[in-house]
Parts: sequence; C-alpha cells; structure tokens
Amino acid sequence: MPSYTAPLRDMQFVLHDLLKVSEQDIPGFADLDRDFTAAVLEESGKVASEILQPLNAVGDTEGCVLENGVVRTPTGFKAAFDAIRDGGWTSIDCSPEFGGQGLPYVLHTAAQEPFVSANMAFNMYQGLTHGAYSAILFHGSEAQKATYLPKLTTCEWTGTMNLTEPHCGTDLGLMRTRAELHADGTYRITGQKIFISAGDHDMAENIIHLVLAKIPGGPEGIKGVSLFIVPKFLVNADGSLGARNPVMVGKVEEKMGIHGNSTCVMNYDGAEGYLIGEAHKGMRAMFTMMNEARLGVGLQGYAQAEAAYQNAVAYAKDRLQGRDITGAKAPEKAADPIIVHPDIRRNLMDQKSFVEGARALTYWGATLIDRAHKNGDKDADGLISLLTPIIKGFQTDKGFEYSVAAQQVYGGHGYIEEWGMSQFARDARIAMIYEGANGIQALDLVGRKLALDGGRHIMGFFDLVKSFIKENEGEASLKAGFLDPLKAASKDLQDAVMYFMANGAKDPNNALAGSYDFMHMMGHVCLGLMWAKMAKAAGEALAAGAADKAFYETKIATGLYYMARQLPATAMHLARIQTGAEFVMVLDAANF
Amino acid sequence: MPSYTAPLRDMQFVLHDLLKVSEQDIPGFADLDRDFTAAVLEESGKVASEILQPLNAVGDTEGCVLENGVVRTPTGFKAAFDAIRDGGWTSIDCSPEFGGQGLPYVLHTAAQEPFVSANMAFNMYQGLTHGAYSAILFHGSEAQKATYLPKLTTCEWTGTMNLTEPHCGTDLGLMRTRAELHADGTYRITGQKIFISAGDHDMAENIIHLVLAKIPGGPEGIKGVSLFIVPKFLVNADGSLGARNPVMVGKVEEKMGIHGNSTCVMNYDGAEGYLIGEAHKGMRAMFTMMNEARLGVGLQGYAQAEAAYQNAVAYAKDRLQGRDITGAKAPEKAADPIIVHPDIRRNLMDQKSFVEGARALTYWGATLIDRAHKNGDKDADGLISLLTPIIKGFQTDKGFEYSVAAQQVYGGHGYIEEWGMSQFARDARIAMIYEGANGIQALDLVGRKLALDGGRHIMGFFDLVKSFIKENEGEASLKAGFLDPLKAASKDLQDAVMYFMANGAKDPNNALAGSYDFMHMMGHVCLGLMWAKMAKAAGEALAAGAADKAFYETKIATGLYYMARQLPATAMHLARIQTGAEFVMVLDAANF
Repeated sequence: MPSYTAPLRDMQFVLHDLLKVSEQDIPGFADLDRDFTAAVLEESGKVASEILQPLNAVGDTEGCVLENGVVRTPTGFKAAFDAIRDGGWTSIDCSPEFGGQGLPYVLHTAAQEPFVSANMAFNMYQGLTHGAYSAILFHGSEAQKATYLPKLTTCEWTGTMNLTEPHCGTDLGLMRTRAELHADGTYRITGQKIFISAGDHDMAENIIHLVLAKIPGGPEGIKGVSLFIVPKFLVNADGSLGARNPVMVGKVEEKMGIHGNSTCVMNYDGAEGYLIGEAHKGMRAMFTMMNEARLGVGLQGYAQAEAAYQNAVAYAKDRLQGRDITGAKAPEKAADPIIVHPDIRRNLMDQKSFVEGARALTYWGATLIDRAHKNGDKDADGLISLLTPIIKGFQTDKGFEYSVAAQQVYGGHGYIEEWGMSQFARDARIAMIYEGANGIQALDLVGRKLALDGGRHIMGFFDLVKSFIKENEGEASLKAGFLDPLKAASKDLQDAVMYFMANGAKDPNNALAGSYDFMHMMGHVCLGLMWAKMAKAAGEALAAGAADKAFYETKIATGLYYMARQLPATAMHLARIQTGAEFVMVLDAANF
Repeated sequence: MPSYTAPLRDMQFVLHDLLKVSEQDIPGFADLDRDFTAAVLEESGKVASEILQPLNAVGDTEGCVLENGVVRTPTGFKAAFDAIRDGGWTSIDCSPEFGGQGLPYVLHTAAQEPFVSANMAFNMYQGLTHGAYSAILFHGSEAQKATYLPKLTTCEWTGTMNLTEPHCGTDLGLMRTRAELHADGTYRITGQKIFISAGDHDMAENIIHLVLAKIPGGPEGIKGVSLFIVPKFLVNADGSLGARNPVMVGKVEEKMGIHGNSTCVMNYDGAEGYLIGEAHKGMRAMFTMMNEARLGVGLQGYAQAEAAYQNAVAYAKDRLQGRDITGAKAPEKAADPIIVHPDIRRNLMDQKSFVEGARALTYWGATLIDRAHKNGDKDADGLISLLTPIIKGFQTDKGFEYSVAAQQVYGGHGYIEEWGMSQFARDARIAMIYEGANGIQALDLVGRKLALDGGRHIMGFFDLVKSFIKENEGEASLKAGFLDPLKAASKDLQDAVMYFMANGAKDPNNALAGSYDFMHMMGHVCLGLMWAKMAKAAGEALAAGAADKAFYETKIATGLYYMARQLPATAMHLARIQTGAEFVMVLDAANF
C-alpha cells in the first residue's frame, strides 16, 4: 500500500527561497512568513497523510454508488469531509465577508497540494465547491452571495459545474439545455448534463449546481449561453432548505480512475434556477474562473506524480535485484537495492526534476493570480493567462507520464492494483482531459494567448527570461549549467513564435499543427526558468551558510539534471513545428 | 463500444510489397503468395472481429474468478477458445510431426495480429501455450515431445511460464523454488511463483507449467537454475490424465488491465516435475525462446495501438465540435467533425505512422527468426537478437503512449469505461512490464547486444541502413523526404554508439545511463528504415500503375510524416546520452 508524506521542505523552499512571498507587495502576503506557512502546511500534510491517504485506495475500490436516486460515497469519506470542513481547509482564501479566512490564493494552493497528492478524487468535492464559490463571488448578485457563499465557504453545501452535454463539450455553442423565464423572475432549467464531478453525494446538506443553459430567443451559439444557480434543495428565505428541485442523477459513470468522486449524468427536468450575472454572458463568468480552475488541475498533474514518485523511491531503496555494475553496494545482502541501477535513477531523476519544477511554476502562477486580483495588475493577469494552458496542459501530460514511470519502477507489482501504483496513473489520466482537454489548451495557447494584446504577454515572458539571464550571467555557478541551456531553449521557443508569425497568416494550420509541440516546448522553458531561479536561490542559501546543505545541493543537482536531460526536447519540438501543416493535413479524412 | 477490422490491406503490403516474402530463400516461404496469405489473414481478421472483439469488454468487466480452487474465465471465453482451436489458429507454425501446419513463423505472426488487437487478454492463453511448445520442442526429450507437443499444438492443453517469485523477477538468481530428485528420476517441486499468466482456467483439460527451480546442491545464483515440466494433471503412459498434481492457485491478481487473462499466484507443494534438458541450464532454455516471446509482446504494443487508432479515427470522423479554421467543412451540420482540426490530425498521424512502421518492423523481425531457424543464418540470428529489445521495449512504450493518445481523441468519453478506450490503454500498459521490463530491454540492448560478437550485429545494422541509402540515393522521390532524415538519424545513433565506446569503459554507467534513450533512438531509426523501404515499395507500385493508388499515396504521405515529425527525436536522445552518468548518478540514495 502506498504512503504519502507532504514534501514540506520543498514547499517551503518554493514559497520562501524562490518566491520570497512574505516580501512581495501583494496585500496579505506580508503575513506569509516562514513560521506561519510552516504551521499551515505541516498541519495540511498531517491531515493528508493521516486522514486522506488511507482513504485513497478505499475510494478507488468501492467507488460511488447510486442508490434510490442518491449517491453514496465510499466508506470513511463523510467523516473525512467533516474533518476537512472542521479544520477550516475549505476556506483559506475565501472572503472574510462570507466566513473565509481571507488569506492569499498561493497559500490555499500550497495547502491543497498534500490533499491532492493523498487523495485526488476526494479532494475534488471541495475543489469544485471552490469553483462555484468563485463564480458566485465574481458574478452573483448581493442576495445570491449572501445566500450561497457562507455555505460554500465552509463546504456545508458543495458545488458543481455543469457545462458538458452528450453531444458537446469543447464546443459549448451546440448546447441544448434550455432555461425558460418564469413569471417570478426565476428560470426553469431542462436538459441533460454529463461528466458532472461531485454531481451528487451524501456528504453535504445541499448541492449548488452551476449550470450553463440557453434562454430561448437568445443569440445563436456560444453567445447565447447563460449561467444559472440550480440548488438541489431550494433555499427558503430564512436560509433553511425547502423543496427538492427536480435535478436528478441519471447515472454514475464507471471511469478509468478517480472512482472516489461521483461523476454524474444530471437530468434537469424543469428545475428552478437563478440567473448569475447577465443573460447570454454565461461564458464570461466561466472564463474568469478558468485560470484558477486550470491551475488546480495542473497541480493535480504534478501532485499525483509526487505521490507516485515518493513510493517509487521507497520501492527502489527496498527492492533487491541485481548488483551495481561498478561493484556491490550491499554485499551483505543477496542483491543491491535497485536504486543503484542507472536506468532506475534516470527514471527517478526525470520524475523528481519534473515534480519540483512544476511545483515552483504552479506556486508562482498562484502568486500571479493573487497579484492580478489583489493589485489589479494587468501584466500579472496577462502572464498567468498565458501560463495557464502550460500549467494545465504540460503539467498534466507530464504528471501522467511520470506517474506511469513511477509505476514502472515496481515492475510487475506496478500492474497489480493492491500495490497502489496503478491508481496514481489511472487517476492522473483524467487531468489531461477535463477542464479543457490538453489539445484545447494547446489551441488556447497558440491560437489565442500568443497573439493576445498584440503579443504583449509572450514578449513579457521572453523579457523575464532574458533579464534573468542578463542579471546573472556573471554568476559562474549558473552560467554553463543553467543560463546557457535556458538561453538555447528560449531561443528555440522564440524561433517557434517567429515561425508561427511568418507562416500562420498564410495558413493558420501552420500554427495549429504545431500547437501541441509548442505547449510542451514552452513547458520546458518555463521549468527551465524555474530551475535556473531555484539554483540561484539554493546557491545563495549555501553561500549564506544554510544548515541543510544537503537539501540545497540536491536542489542544484536536480536542476542540472533537468537542464541537461530535459531541455534538449525544445529542439525536437521546434523541428516538428517548423514542418508546419503540410504533413499533418495532407490526408483526406477517408485515408486515415 | 469499440470495433475492430483487421488492416488486411496494410498487412498484405508489408508481407508482399515490402518483405516480398514469397521470393525469399527461406524454406516454406515460396508458399506465401498473395492469395494464400490473403485467405489466411482474411479469415483471421474475421475470427478476430466476430468472435474475439465482442468478448474484449466482457473479459475486462467480468475478469477471472477463483472458485473452489479453479479459475473461471469470463462468459464466452471457452466457446471462443474452442473456435480458435478448431480453426487451427494455434498450430500455424508448429511442426507437422506434432500436428502443426509447419508454416513460417512470419505467417503465424501476421495471423496473430488481429487476435491481439481484438482481445489481447484472451489471446494470451494461446500465446503462453506457444511459448511452452517452443521450450519443449527445442529442449525437451523425445518422450517429452511426444507426450506434450501434440496437445500444446492444438491447445487442448495450454502452457504457462513460471519464472517470477515474490522477491525476484529480473534477478532470477535469487530464486527459492526448489526441485528435489525423487527415486524414480522425477523431481518434486516446492515453492511459490507469481504473475503466472493463464496459470489456471477452465478452457483446457490440462495445463502444462514450465517452472524454473533450483536443484539443491547445484551452483549458486542464476547458474543453478533448471527448467521443469509440471503438469496440472499427471499424464498416464497411455496419454490419459491421471492424478491432480499439487500445484495450486493461491490467488488471482486484481490488475490494471488484461482482466480476461488469469494472472495467478501458483503454489507448488511437492508437485511432480520433469527436468527439461540439462540440470542447471534452465536459463539457456528460457533465452532461446526469448526473441520469439518478446517479439510477441512487441506485437501486442502496436496491435493495441492499432485497435485504439481505428476507433479514434471513427470517433474523429463522427464527433461534431467546432469549425475548420480555414472554413466550414460540413456547413450543413451544426459543426465540423473533429478530424478537421490540426491537433486531432497531428495526434492521429502520430498513431498511424507508428503503428504501420511497427508492423513492418515486427513482420521483418519474424522473417529474421524464420531465417535464423530454417536457414541456420547466424547473421539473421544476431540481427534479430539486436532488434528484439527494440521491438519489445520501444514498441510497447509507444504502443501504450498511442493507446493513451487515441483515448484522448474521445475527450471525456475516453475516460468512461463504457466507451472502451480506457481498456486499450490499461491492457497495453502491461506489455511495457512483462517479458522483461522495458528498462531491462534497454540494459540488454546497450549492456549486452551492442557488444555481442565484437559489435558485429550493430555494425551489420548500420551497414543495412547505409547500403539502402546508397542504393537509392539517385531516387529523387526518396532523397529529401526519406534518405536524408534517415541518414541524419542513423548518424545520431552511430554517435551514441561512439559515445558509449569512448566513455563506457571508463565508467559503465556512462553507457547504462543512456540505455533507455538509446533504445528509443534506435527504435526511431528502425522505423525510419522501415518507412524509407515502404516508401520505395509504394513508389514502385505506383510507377507500375497499381490499382489502389490512394493506398500507396497515403503510405508515402504517412512515411513523410514519420520522417519529418518523429525522427527529430534522435537528436534529443543523443543530447541526453552524451551527458553520460554524471547527472543521473550524482545523488546519494538518501537525497531522492
């Protein structure tokens, strides 16, 4: 059975050595000193290891069951959810006006990581609720906020997001669910929604569904989509629960993974709903939440890889097979632990260097969201919009890849469910699909974000890289190992942008055929930048005589690995991109 | 629910246009004319589509159940197994002396492909039997052959391979199962074996376990391992079945996939066994079967990707979402089919160009096995030994990767078990692990095969590539698209070999740290060679006025895609390899 321990030392390193959060000029960040974040994260890690992790296999094995119209969650989930709620873990960054703790989003993000590593399926119940909270906070009326936000803050009520229908997911303009205006100003929602995570369960008094639907007579396509609040139980004026609203679970899906989360078909049969924000502007409300939601999914990617990695390392130190080719390391035993073998190390270093780089990128992204929201910083907002498809798309692709790689360390045992490594891979797989499949992330990046505001944000990103290199080029310890490879990779990325500019106008497919490669390429450059910055921070700590020398030296060694062994991928991606649309688009559909 | 149609046109292309099997100077190959192979493969495809494919989901859902000490296979498996047996599909390349059809191994390989695509878990029952057949054929006594081979040929009895124990898989020298000599010259086998595919089931009268065990007093380690026949039911002198041998199923494992195959813990409690070949030479018997068994697993890799690809293409043509960015392709519909989108095509072309290249490499490999066995050709034997870790390791890694990629085309539906795409990925996953985990394949390739016979075989491979390029460099249609990228990739591969030679002696870890990259790199070069040869064959067919022009043009276009978009990976692998052991080996185990 797998175990999990929150990587507190590394989380603190990212927050304080790398991001220096408490020194940042963002409201609330001054509170984030080392002691405070240590206390919060240590407790989060404890909850994760002691309460959530033991339920991960339970959730996978038992799954969610539809009984008499209600979904029953796996054994122990309800008690664990109460513990999360009671511990205040659902409200870290929620507004004090509605019962939240008003702390920065970056702290919420860091505190969530252990929960996601320990039990991704379980943590989705609160994750979705946070999304519903944000939608109502940013777009709801005062009355709606007053009614729903205090309950969503505490997760006494949970939330869902209802977008997909059987015939449409990416292309929501094709939506058929309709919302008809009732005499009292409320709406009646009718239609079917699918893939509704946490669509029903037995862990909360009420479930607040946020539902996209079309008001008849509105504009065609995506411009005629509105967002509605549809509670499972209607809420009386005094806040007590009233009648059961006709929104019913049609089915709980059998999935590849995240069995502990109930993925429901939801049937709306004239359910009472309340418009959020303006009619026909539902997508706008969705989009404002997207950076946050996608960052959360990107976190799932590396958080699963982190959990899988920890177990792969433990197994590699424990499993005895073969001998170190340069001489026995454990001559007193029948064989050496497999961690002596170069290919096992290669695999573990791939995992480690990705996970730590992705953690840095994710927390940095979270600070950009804080800065955008709290300082109204447009550049931060533009930058995180640009980085979002990478955090989501690249990190979930790699998170799955390395969960599979960690499983591989176990040999045959990795394939046996009892050992738990299969679950990491199966659970991580969904993150590549939901919240916009990764192909859509790549399209968003290349088809939309690169050119946004006249290319201002990608240019800003290149400036960041360039100025970091320039500021540090006198630093001999960084030059060959970090700055040179970062410069080369960044140059490849710029060449790709140039290629898109030169050839995309002629035929947009020349850009879109390279979108996936670009997303991965930029992912490597982002992680390369993170590693260069982390190496600098680690070098400074060592120079200052830091106590935990081994930690900082390991950090630098891990970064050198990433730069030397992962960044060369950018040249390959560039080569692919520069072949344009020709080879991709040449076949008639009939000839596939 | 997925469907499957055998890619007969492509299979015939590989056999006849590419490999020109009926013209090869290998005994039996003259019979393999187009009509004959068409008849065999068409029928194999029919059995696969009509009988095996519909049982694929059944096997996945029901799994194998241990009841009163006997494993019950999923509904319909027994009848299907009877059909396979009655159709003569188990005996294509078996010796006529023992009831087989005596046809070439390459025909067996091609005929198996549809079965594996349609139902990998099911087909393992006969696959394992074929392995046991070969072990006894090559190493058994005349009496053993007479007793077991006729029944294994027909699969009236099935076979298993028992190597792994709880504490050892790769390092079989640690084995504890012991075989004690009995007064009558038989042995008594005692110990526990795990991961025994097809270890028990209800589809055959008897099961013949091939078991590795140590005879007490023999040499230590791997040199003291012997191979035994241990039948489930003892066989009387007249061939009838006698007493139940004490070899019992301890457990049927819950796995990530291939649920239709029973993976058993087998407990040997003084079971009667018969030595195959010489005492303490058991590994030699295992090794002689390995090229064949590993080629079979490599086939599983691309065969799952083929099945997944077919369904991804069908879905991409059917699913309507969004519009072609260059103008609506289906203006009469609410949206265009997603196959219009460049990134969907990029994904499908990746899959298609891999699967077709891997098919060519696998069938070519099968002809090399035929040539080695039937012509006693040492070069062919050396070459297939060299190619085996690539066929197994590279093709199963990619087969899984592209099964996952095919699943991705389905968006959210890909994650729902009912749609069947998850099963392809989960089933394909095992092929990376069993029959020597892929890290072991890479080690075998770089640590053993490269240097074998003074490097003669890798030099032979480079000569093959070089001479193909040289013979065709006047061919303008091949030059830029095929020969130049092949030359560059082959150059990268040679540079990697040079790097290993220059740095491996100093520190073998400099070679082994690059072994996995080398395996993938050489996989690309092999597929590049296959594509260049296929393009040549297709060009010749077109020049000769072939009727199915679209097929040959598509073949060339798919090859151009592979060369342009996949071969650039070799430079990345080379860059990684040339960093040597330094970054891989630097950390103390404690610092992972």
